[in-house]
Amino acid sequence: MYAETFARLIEELKKLPGIGPKSAQRLSFHVLQSSRQDVDKLVEAIKQAKAMLKHCSKCYNITDVEPCKICSDDNRGKNQLCVVAEPKDLLAIERSGGYQGKYHVLGGLISPLDGIGPESLRIKELIERLRREKVEELILAISPTTEGEATNIYLSKILKPLGVKITRLAYGLPIGADMDYADEATLSKAFQGRNELVV
Amino acid sequence: MYAETFARLIEELKKLPGIGPKSAQRLSFHVLQSSRQDVDKLVEAIKQAKAMLKHCSKCYNITDVEPCKICSDDNRGKNQLCVVAEPKDLLAIERSGGYQGKYHVLGGLISPLDGIGPESLRIKELIERLRREKVEELILAISPTTEGEATNIYLSKILKPLGVKITRLAYGLPIGADMDYADEATLSKAFQGRNELVV
Repeated sequence: MYAETFARLIEELKKLPGIGPKSAQRLSFHVLQSSRQDVDKLVEAIKQAKAMLKHCSKCYNITDVEPCKICSDDNRGKNQLCVVAEPKDLLAIERSGGYQGKYHVLGGLISPLDGIGPESLRIKELIERLRREKVEELILAISPTTEGEATNIYLSKILKPLGVKITRLAYGLPIGADMDYADEATLSKAFQGRNELVV
Repeated sequence: MYAETFARLIEELKKLPGIGPKSAQRLSFHVLQSSRQDVDKLVEAIKQAKAMLKHCSKCYNITDVEPCKICSDDNRGKNQLCVVAEPKDLLAIERSGGYQGKYHVLGGLISPLDGIGPESLRIKELIERLRREKVEELILAISPTTEGEATNIYLSKILKPLGVKITRLAYGLPIGADMDYADEATLSKAFQGRNELVV
């Protein structure tokens, strides 16, 4: 009942993550109602992104220059290396502004159920970097999930012989959260990690 | 902090309806992770849709043939004409399979607050059709909202002199809904429109 060209657009949009039939239809109507110029800009942005963006050869972040802006920024400390699972985690940390060192993107987390073992991640590359670069502290900034914990444990075991100091982000109550809404695991971690309040 | 090409893609995606910063980022990562072939198919579908799809010159539905498939389908009754606000409403009715006649798409609803008066809608075209075609019943299939009611009232007033029978869809409880979750307006309409139960 859809015009064929319209049905094809809906089909393609439905393949995108988080886009169901209803959203795909709404987006398709939006494309039809937009100016030719706006549609061209969208299409160009997609094509350019696909053509230009690569993984940085040093940290494996997404970049259109080589090495990426963070790796080539001499103002950023070289003594710290922050390990993240995906580029989106790196972006979240950058948005927070709480870290000024360099990064290493693993490309995922260990997850035997999904067939992702340590060899699928950029752990070999991390070890090479630790041997080559003068890193004093390796910060594991990995989500506290089952897969994240497995990856943390694996990394700390395999990297121990290298003698680098390994830390991980604090677990505890999220800022702004109501304490009685915190789940048991978070609350228990928050107790374990309690700090002396200095006034 | 984003690579420029990546930031531009996120910006373009954020302009789409229902796509916030988080979804735009997720979609952008998806584009990077997809095969070149899949991205080309998406881009082509967007370009094709924009280039090929037009409004049918008779009913103003979206189509890539002229007149549209529904208008050129001789199996569909010509005595009934169903008036809808937007092509998506037409699609919803087609999915229901409850109607076998022809359509007229207004292109919106009367909404003075948004600056949409009757002259912005395809009402002149509707009157011309009613004069030219042998329509016995005009069915107003318009959402029961403030704007929808205003449009219904305006249409029934302006079309009355043409002598065509004007009906509108029944208002009442949605099928499958729990009665105690129905809002007061719906329940009151359902009472007003009650039918004798014939067993």
